[in-house]
Amino acid sequence: MVFVRREQFDENRETLLATASKLFRERGIDGVGVAEIAREAGLTHGALYAHFRSKEALATEAFSTGLALSREAFRGDGARRKRTVAGYLNYLLSSLNRDDPGASCPMTASASEIGRHGEEISARFAKGFQEKAGAFEAVLDEGISGAERRRMSLAIVAAEIGAMAAARAVAKSDPDLSDEILKAVHALLVKAAKAP
Amino acid sequence: MVFVRREQFDENRETLLATASKLFRERGIDGVGVAEIAREAGLTHGALYAHFRSKEALATEAFSTGLALSREAFRGDGARRKRTVAGYLNYLLSSLNRDDPGASCPMTASASEIGRHGEEISARFAKGFQEKAGAFEAVLDEGISGAERRRMSLAIVAAEIGAMAAARAVAKSDPDLSDEILKAVHALLVKAAKAP
Repeated sequence: MVFVRREQFDENRETLLATASKLFRERGIDGVGVAEIAREAGLTHGALYAHFRSKEALATEAFSTGLALSREAFRGDGARRKRTVAGYLNYLLSSLNRDDPGASCPMTASASEIGRHGEEISARFAKGFQEKAGAFEAVLDEGISGAERRRMSLAIVAAEIGAMAAARAVAKSDPDLSDEILKAVHALLVKAAKAP
Repeated sequence: MVFVRREQFDENRETLLATASKLFRERGIDGVGVAEIAREAGLTHGALYAHFRSKEALATEAFSTGLALSREAFRGDGARRKRTVAGYLNYLLSSLNRDDPGASCPMTASASEIGRHGEEISARFAKGFQEKAGAFEAVLDEGISGAERRRMSLAIVAAEIGAMAAARAVAKSDPDLSDEILKAVHALLVKAAKAP
């Protein structure tokens, strides 16, 4: 047994979460094992289990880490971006985001995986989804009111996630279609978000 | 070495594809191994490799099998369904579909996985995506014309895929939000598909 100081222990946890979050987004939760995550983080398999009792527990915490990192990237980009539906979507549906899943939103990176995992990671997804919807709701046209604001924001986030997942899915075989999908959803959502 | 008759060989291939297609949709391509697929199909591991040289090759063919099966289910349901955007979405965005990924569209089941796999499965996804978009394009309001028809259809399919993936992701922790997402995207798309 190797004892590490408290600060080292906490630092290891941060490193593990950042590493896991990046690898899970790049290769999917089921696409990467804990042994590889520990190795990539420069730690032993045993050290990993001192922090997380299971791969599911690590995936759940790493999902929240990914959400926080992508929120930060989104905010960091904010100075150059208009606080409008179009401005947000310019960023979220960019080819830059498409081509770098490891640095992008974990909801999109694992969209179709989360339903197959546990209740806790599902709750983290739901929280992230509601937060993103809240950010859109705040910049919707003022002419859209009441229940319609909430409905529209949820639909925007779901459509944005689908657009990015589909754009990534076809990118290897049909890059033109990939671009077309991102632009088509961008146009649809910007138009829909305008008051009638 | 065991020799099997041609008909038996072909039948085994069909069984393998149907089994793989169902398991991949239920648990993801990375979530299930070939040994389990062979066992579930009542065949040996070796028999599987007589048909498919790799898991990727099996996943690619099984993806097309899933597309064909879900197209068939979609058509089979057609008698009870209006040939309209709303009619199609009633079926595609139903809670029945959400709760039975193994019998539903493989594009949705593996939305975020395909981008991490090879070019051939990406091409199958692109083909399935274009076909589904074509089905929507054929029933769009006649007042929508030209390039806008194509754009709208691509956006509808991407949004529908995102809605279902997100609805499944949150279902375990927040079933109300899950229903809300399906309804919100349904409403957004039906409204958008109407000529201005």
